[in-house]
Amino acid sequence: MSTGFFEAHRERLDGALNAIATRGFWAAFPEVPSGRIYGETAKTDGIEAFKARLNTPWPIEQPGTASMVGGEHSPYGMDLGITYPTPDLDGLLAASAAAMQTWKRADIQTRTGVCLEILDRLNRRSFEMANAVMHTTGQGFMMAFQAGGPHAQDRGLEAVAYAYSEMTRTPATSTWTKQVSKTDFITLNKTYRIVPRGVAVTVGCSTFPTWNSYPGIFASLATGNAVVVKPHPGAVLPLAITIEVCRDVLVEAGFDPNLVLLACDTAETPITADLVTHTGVGIVDYTGGNEFGDWVEANARQAVVFTEKAGVNSMILDGVADMRAVSGNLAFSLCLYSGQMCTTPQNIYVPADGIETPDGRLGFDEVAGAIVKGIDWLLSEPARAAEILGAVQNPATIDRVEAARSAGGTVLRDGGPIDNEHFPDARTCSPLIVQVDEGDESLYQQECFGPIIYIVRTKDTARSIELASSAATRLGALTCGLYSMNDDVISATEDAMADAGVALSCNLAGQIYVNQSAAYSDFHVSGANPAGNATLCDGAFVASRFRVVASRIPVPAHVEATT
Amino acid sequence: MSTGFFEAHRERLDGALNAIATRGFWAAFPEVPSGRIYGETAKTDGIEAFKARLNTPWPIEQPGTASMVGGEHSPYGMDLGITYPTPDLDGLLAASAAAMQTWKRADIQTRTGVCLEILDRLNRRSFEMANAVMHTTGQGFMMAFQAGGPHAQDRGLEAVAYAYSEMTRTPATSTWTKQVSKTDFITLNKTYRIVPRGVAVTVGCSTFPTWNSYPGIFASLATGNAVVVKPHPGAVLPLAITIEVCRDVLVEAGFDPNLVLLACDTAETPITADLVTHTGVGIVDYTGGNEFGDWVEANARQAVVFTEKAGVNSMILDGVADMRAVSGNLAFSLCLYSGQMCTTPQNIYVPADGIETPDGRLGFDEVAGAIVKGIDWLLSEPARAAEILGAVQNPATIDRVEAARSAGGTVLRDGGPIDNEHFPDARTCSPLIVQVDEGDESLYQQECFGPIIYIVRTKDTARSIELASSAATRLGALTCGLYSMNDDVISATEDAMADAGVALSCNLAGQIYVNQSAAYSDFHVSGANPAGNATLCDGAFVASRFRVVASRIPVPAHVEATT
Repeated sequence: MSTGFFEAHRERLDGALNAIATRGFWAAFPEVPSGRIYGETAKTDGIEAFKARLNTPWPIEQPGTASMVGGEHSPYGMDLGITYPTPDLDGLLAASAAAMQTWKRADIQTRTGVCLEILDRLNRRSFEMANAVMHTTGQGFMMAFQAGGPHAQDRGLEAVAYAYSEMTRTPATSTWTKQVSKTDFITLNKTYRIVPRGVAVTVGCSTFPTWNSYPGIFASLATGNAVVVKPHPGAVLPLAITIEVCRDVLVEAGFDPNLVLLACDTAETPITADLVTHTGVGIVDYTGGNEFGDWVEANARQAVVFTEKAGVNSMILDGVADMRAVSGNLAFSLCLYSGQMCTTPQNIYVPADGIETPDGRLGFDEVAGAIVKGIDWLLSEPARAAEILGAVQNPATIDRVEAARSAGGTVLRDGGPIDNEHFPDARTCSPLIVQVDEGDESLYQQECFGPIIYIVRTKDTARSIELASSAATRLGALTCGLYSMNDDVISATEDAMADAGVALSCNLAGQIYVNQSAAYSDFHVSGANPAGNATLCDGAFVASRFRVVASRIPVPAHVEATT
Repeated sequence: MSTGFFEAHRERLDGALNAIATRGFWAAFPEVPSGRIYGETAKTDGIEAFKARLNTPWPIEQPGTASMVGGEHSPYGMDLGITYPTPDLDGLLAASAAAMQTWKRADIQTRTGVCLEILDRLNRRSFEMANAVMHTTGQGFMMAFQAGGPHAQDRGLEAVAYAYSEMTRTPATSTWTKQVSKTDFITLNKTYRIVPRGVAVTVGCSTFPTWNSYPGIFASLATGNAVVVKPHPGAVLPLAITIEVCRDVLVEAGFDPNLVLLACDTAETPITADLVTHTGVGIVDYTGGNEFGDWVEANARQAVVFTEKAGVNSMILDGVADMRAVSGNLAFSLCLYSGQMCTTPQNIYVPADGIETPDGRLGFDEVAGAIVKGIDWLLSEPARAAEILGAVQNPATIDRVEAARSAGGTVLRDGGPIDNEHFPDARTCSPLIVQVDEGDESLYQQECFGPIIYIVRTKDTARSIELASSAATRLGALTCGLYSMNDDVISATEDAMADAGVALSCNLAGQIYVNQSAAYSDFHVSGANPAGNATLCDGAFVASRFRVVASRIPVPAHVEATT
């Protein structure tokens, strides 16, 4: 098999391998949507490529196709009008299993090289992808470009690096010589073969279709498995484009394109439950809500299941060096993509007697007021507000904001539609901020996905830590933010959050935000609380996608004598 | 915390780390039960230490003890008369969880050092352990010494090496600097903490109580978990001794001895189902029969479950360079420990028209005759027969031989008791050999644990491979042996067995046997067929026993400026 792709991208792989071992900043794919990097016509070409897809069927004919379906509606206000194959599952999975037969026999370098080439080509299509992500998820353009393009590609490359590292941990061959008596030796030649677990299903989500799916897709593919991608019916196109690229590269490398297949469904006729529990499926990567994610963990018993769900993220305010810098940083975290990130803080814990500052204590009401003011300022400029908030992917999120507004507590800032001059029909919503007391747990101790924020008045910071930690343990959490000038508080929060399996960000200010997770450095989801059973990416994320099976045979005596 | 133990054993750890990466022969613990290695009085001391334990209660008082139980009976004919604590599960698991609180905060080197020291002390007690293993499992002395002592210790060290390697894959800290504008940088200090998954339960088996349990015990302990050991009621003592050593070392290192606890039960009042499904348990390592192992996999949903079960192992005869050498090698594999190894071949596939030899084809009947003759010769000397066969652990195994004798097929060699001059009351049984046709699948395509061998007459070698492979896929298998002088046959068998997840041994002769699995080089159980879902040892065996949880905090600007 050709290892040309591997050699072509070897330096990039080495960079990723070094980065996951050292965990400093590193990126293979530039995050700036600049013509100087991506080509002067890249932006226009990307829009054109996206537009050319609208109102047409997806161009690939797949085996096991039952019919064509489609219902994507841009949160910015238009129907996409694209149709995609929905499968006969037995037929689709048979094609998938058949495609694995040559792929699993290819060597590690060949498979890794194919994955690296796919990522490289995806990178070149980042502008097209940005439009696809924007008009399915509702992300603003800049975020759709970064999170949907280079950041997703880096997260995919991270998974390839982990898979490569894990597979090469065992050599392909060894010579084993044991002395069995004073004069006698036994020498065996051993070969170790990577045996993939089986067809992998990746279930995508509607908000980050590429970023959350690439790790599973590439980890499975690199380790010799075929992949069936089941996108959220509202965000198919980004993964459909991905699959096209995968198939092109696979064919060029001499493999069966059906190693990567698309399996679409509709909200009315979902197939995910049948797909993930199918006996032909050996691996499931799921990103999405907790209820169905828990169901997948409990029912896809024939498969290894990796889940990335959600939870109740916290922000603990204990003390700040500069409230204005903090409220500015917080405002961006809370507004970005209208709070539709699984890492967005939901509950902001503030002690009843306020927080420490260099100028003395700042009262609770002043802290809450500063948070509201920070958001109001950030959203005061309409174009900036439209870009940061983006649009709301699911109408149910708007309903949730409506319900939260009247459920209880004191509304400190009402959330509602904003103007978007480019997309007047966009479904938008700015953050709702509700003040509650720590006793109002029925209001705030549940996941409220979307632009809903609770400022929780607590007895003191110790109680804030306890509330944040117990919510994480019971309901799951991905992130916790802390602002404190007290080392003991920082240390206690580190202990509590480590035990609760929550990534902690302390005293962030400037252009770094609690909801950002950097490939090669930050683990996304810990796997140690109900927000998910897996991490992007660690050894556990790749190690059980394959097995090593060995064969051993004696070295003939005359050969042995010469070694 | 003290890292003295780590430094003391660092060279040994490095040896293990090198061995798992290169997979040549390596051993930390000498397998020869020699006074020159273990001390001139070691053998006598070991017997005395063992005898001193008989008819007394286990000396350790544990928290959460409900009562004392015991019913071990040596397969060599005597009651051990030792009693052990059986737990109140809630009390036991609370003590276990409490013990983890300091252990999980210790650094990687400290925990690893404690594990290395435990293994070192276990090694020094290998003679005592040999007697304990012999008189619970029924293994012959030499095997009890090697498999129960140094080989088990090496398997434990292998797990420690994998755990250490996995934990140190992520650095404890990193500095992350990202350029966010032409002139601005963000620098974060990040810390990465190992967070153990939770209390680990190791369920031991009656035949290899230490060898099969050490990997799980040490992998869990090294990664910060507490361990509750639930031995088979018939083979408690080897694990009870192990726990004593663990607790001694933990106390010396300043930790809570309840990090390793014994949980005994009886055949009449089993506790395993309640224990492995307890909400306080996060990890389960199970070795034992398939029926209960499947139940554990299906029901211990709150835990990560690692199983080592059993299956139908095969031997495929296609051609031999020297039938006498092969039948001698086979005889030892088939007789060793009366076929009570999960790696012992059960079905020997021989083509109806015989096999290839340098002197032309050797007919089916001649091949079958040679196998019988090889066993008869090996067992012709009573002392040798007694040592190799050992005794039968479970009376049900004798019943199984009885049933197989009359179930069908042609008995080529009857199995039955042999004399053991040292232990006249030993429960012994030499191998039963039954000839069947490939169509008699209801007889041989099921696991027949113990000294029961089927010689299966097949159409040809291709059919033999197919039968061996399909049995492995449906019923599980750990090993396959092949004798062939044809490279195409070897290659086809390698492909088939890799796909079926079965370790293949080709053309073994001399002092190397299909049922031997060498630590650091051979993977035991592939995890890729129903014989188990895990491997001893690979990355997947250790990676999900812990998670990494991170904390990040900005580096103050003035510090940044100086770096």
